[in-house]
Amino acid sequence: MANLFVNINDLSNQDLLSMIHQALLFKHGDLIPAAEKQVVANIFFENSTRTASSFQMAEIKLGFPRIVIDPSRSSAAKGESLSDTLKTLKAIGVGIVVIRHSLRGWYEPFYESAGKTLPKLVNAGDGNGQHPSQSLLDLMTISEYFGRFAGLKIRIIGDIYHSRVARSNAEILKRLGAEVTFSGPRDWCDVSLTQYGQYVDLDDGLGQQDVVMLLRVQHERLSADENSTFTPAAYHVQFGLTQARYDCLKNDAIIMHPAPVNRGVEIDSDLVEAPKSRIFQQMANGVFARMAILNYLNSPLTTRELV
Amino acid sequence: MANLFVNINDLSNQDLLSMIHQALLFKHGDLIPAAEKQVVANIFFENSTRTASSFQMAEIKLGFPRIVIDPSRSSAAKGESLSDTLKTLKAIGVGIVVIRHSLRGWYEPFYESAGKTLPKLVNAGDGNGQHPSQSLLDLMTISEYFGRFAGLKIRIIGDIYHSRVARSNAEILKRLGAEVTFSGPRDWCDVSLTQYGQYVDLDDGLGQQDVVMLLRVQHERLSADENSTFTPAAYHVQFGLTQARYDCLKNDAIIMHPAPVNRGVEIDSDLVEAPKSRIFQQMANGVFARMAILNYLNSPLTTRELV
Amino acid sequence: MANLFVNINDLSNQDLLSMIHQALLFKHGDLIPAAEKQVVANIFFENSTRTASSFQMAEIKLGFPRIVIDPSRSSAAKGESLSDTLKTLKAIGVGIVVIRHSLRGWYEPFYESAGKTLPKLVNAGDGNGQHPSQSLLDLMTISEYFGRFAGLKIRIIGDIYHSRVARSNAEILKRLGAEVTFSGPRDWCDVSLTQYGQYVDLDDGLGQQDVVMLLRVQHERLSADENSTFTPAAYHVQFGLTQARYDCLKNDAIIMHPAPVNRGVEIDSDLVEAPKSRIFQQMANGVFARMAILNYLNSPLTTRELV
Repeated sequence: MANLFVNINDLSNQDLLSMIHQALLFKHGDLIPAAEKQVVANIFFENSTRTASSFQMAEIKLGFPRIVIDPSRSSAAKGESLSDTLKTLKAIGVGIVVIRHSLRGWYEPFYESAGKTLPKLVNAGDGNGQHPSQSLLDLMTISEYFGRFAGLKIRIIGDIYHSRVARSNAEILKRLGAEVTFSGPRDWCDVSLTQYGQYVDLDDGLGQQDVVMLLRVQHERLSADENSTFTPAAYHVQFGLTQARYDCLKNDAIIMHPAPVNRGVEIDSDLVEAPKSRIFQQMANGVFARMAILNYLNSPLTTRELV
Repeated sequence: MANLFVNINDLSNQDLLSMIHQALLFKHGDLIPAAEKQVVANIFFENSTRTASSFQMAEIKLGFPRIVIDPSRSSAAKGESLSDTLKTLKAIGVGIVVIRHSLRGWYEPFYESAGKTLPKLVNAGDGNGQHPSQSLLDLMTISEYFGRFAGLKIRIIGDIYHSRVARSNAEILKRLGAEVTFSGPRDWCDVSLTQYGQYVDLDDGLGQQDVVMLLRVQHERLSADENSTFTPAAYHVQFGLTQARYDCLKNDAIIMHPAPVNRGVEIDSDLVEAPKSRIFQQMANGVFARMAILNYLNSPLTTRELV
Repeated sequence: MANLFVNINDLSNQDLLSMIHQALLFKHGDLIPAAEKQVVANIFFENSTRTASSFQMAEIKLGFPRIVIDPSRSSAAKGESLSDTLKTLKAIGVGIVVIRHSLRGWYEPFYESAGKTLPKLVNAGDGNGQHPSQSLLDLMTISEYFGRFAGLKIRIIGDIYHSRVARSNAEILKRLGAEVTFSGPRDWCDVSLTQYGQYVDLDDGLGQQDVVMLLRVQHERLSADENSTFTPAAYHVQFGLTQARYDCLKNDAIIMHPAPVNRGVEIDSDLVEAPKSRIFQQMANGVFARMAILNYLNSPLTTRELV
């Protein structure tokens, strides 16, 4: 039983593997949700259909009632601090608050108070920092297919610099024993990530990768600069997963993408649902990963498995 | 068990009558909702209190959990196609999606994929096209009172051209054996509808009608054109249900209106709740009609009746 | 069983004390919610995280399903009157509507029709008029601590003129036997309230008060007028609860504030959670007070207690 799930890198290997195991048990109907229910508030200061819907579905499946709060119409507009808003929610009986916020590290001040004077906290994405529930569902999807992380070759491709997914995943995958490399436009490199893996040309060793992890291109980055050479079509040729690149992948390689996909940019539209693609499976797994996250905050990880 | 409910004209007479029967059974508490529950997402790209609330109430009565999605804050704003949004919702476990959209025929591309790679789909209104749940509740209201459609004289009055209700209802009522006529301003005639009934002067045969079906006037149409002769007051005199016209109706005639009513325009304010008016009864019936629609997508129509 | 809860001053002393008793029973788990459930619609034409969340939590605890209506996207935008919107909600089966509206006395036209042709109605705040659920939770918080009202000295401090809380509370507290006084800037006096208590200097008799009830300062009032002498810092010195003033309070005095608090304005930030403060306890009590309100509209007040 924990008080926060805000940064995937905070978790021990054992807790991570246990949560992945739980998520897979939930997926296969082999784990019964805890009898104790928490009231949850999902507060999305930034838009997200996918993550918001997925958390809602996880809450429905766990039987957790929801308080609906629209942050654009809330007391935050009256100048109330996030800390006071959270204290209020604790006072009225909210057990867990799921927050997406543009401020990187919004949760930093709350490590001590979460679960005590504040509700328990889940980070559903903080600016270009962490997106730990996405990381967990990515790990779950890899684990489900390969049954292991050690020795897997994983290539992360695209806008490394602006991606919270890249940052979270690179560190944790390396810790779990995978061999991470990066490819993408030079302007979007993030040198701080080279401790976790090298930058290589996209086509360099692509055919040896077990996992090809594509990152979403923010459209605004392709069009903002008039002098930019990054048109969607040019990006696709240089850094996209084309049919030719798909054909050179290992037989048992898998393709991942956090979605929403820009069809014809990061990946050929026809490949989004190709046999090696796990893109929609990632979305399906996201619900079970989020059930495991909420359960992790609600109940001890052990002793809850069906025989 | 069907995969879409998008165009009332797609349904056979038998299915229609069966759904009306189901809706009346739900109304009288003689039908128990199916034990299997579907998670529903209601996505209203256009505003509507009435239809949105009515679907929510139907979902509550059926015990169907809801995912809340605000389309103005969704991934659609990131350029995701409706098809990919729907695939995502299917992936996370949404069974039925109820959509109101300004694009006429938004559902056309999905006839094959609904219920397979997409969730099952309900059209809650597409631009000036269909509004099939409104049509079903209208049919239910007529059937509840008269017990039949054959031979009924039905006058549809008002802005025929812009009304999705007029279009849906005219075709289906003729098919079920009713005799439809239209009245209203010449500028708002729709010649494509004359296959279902003739345009006549409002006062021509009004006293022989069984059903007087008033259409809502869009206020913007009354005021947009400075040269327009359509003031609200002038419309009321020429095409509204005044007390004098009410007094000439048959004893067992009924008055219908999809609401919200412009009091004093389509109908004298004092007549909205007059004995012959079924306007609020239509709203009440709407919940049960929508239960029948959701049930139609969830369960076989037969074998579910009590006794 | 009543049809409206709109103005705390409408309630008899007996009903008030009975509701406070019920709220405390709910808080201690000694009252089981009625088996009959009402569908509730919360319509907030003005923003409020706190009140909206608190009503939602009360509805969750009572097991009342909710219809979600966003008034900014509703038929009100099509010009429908509040009366017709409420009739529609009644028609579709909504039992209770909770409304916050900027129009003072929005509920006045509905005293006769609420619970008959309209749903039962709760006022969640009407402009600068009433805020009766806040009043009830304030009364509950006082009663919980002192067990009585008669003879209590209660000082209401701040923007008396614009506060719906001051208005509601002053009248009802006097009726229940408390001795009310007011302090605050002269410009924000409301002479119509002097029938309930005198204006006195803040530090005049502060050490004899049982309850110090701080009102929220609207930030816009501190900054709107360039010639205003009301800066937040100046307000704090003149009318705020400073540490020095706190130290002079009676041992068993309590401090209340409707929140959200402007830390460092109405109260020293360090005192918000000081031992005498009941500010977060008020929020917690608000849920149980609102359960009692919804229960009051749903069930007879008597015969529902455990044992």
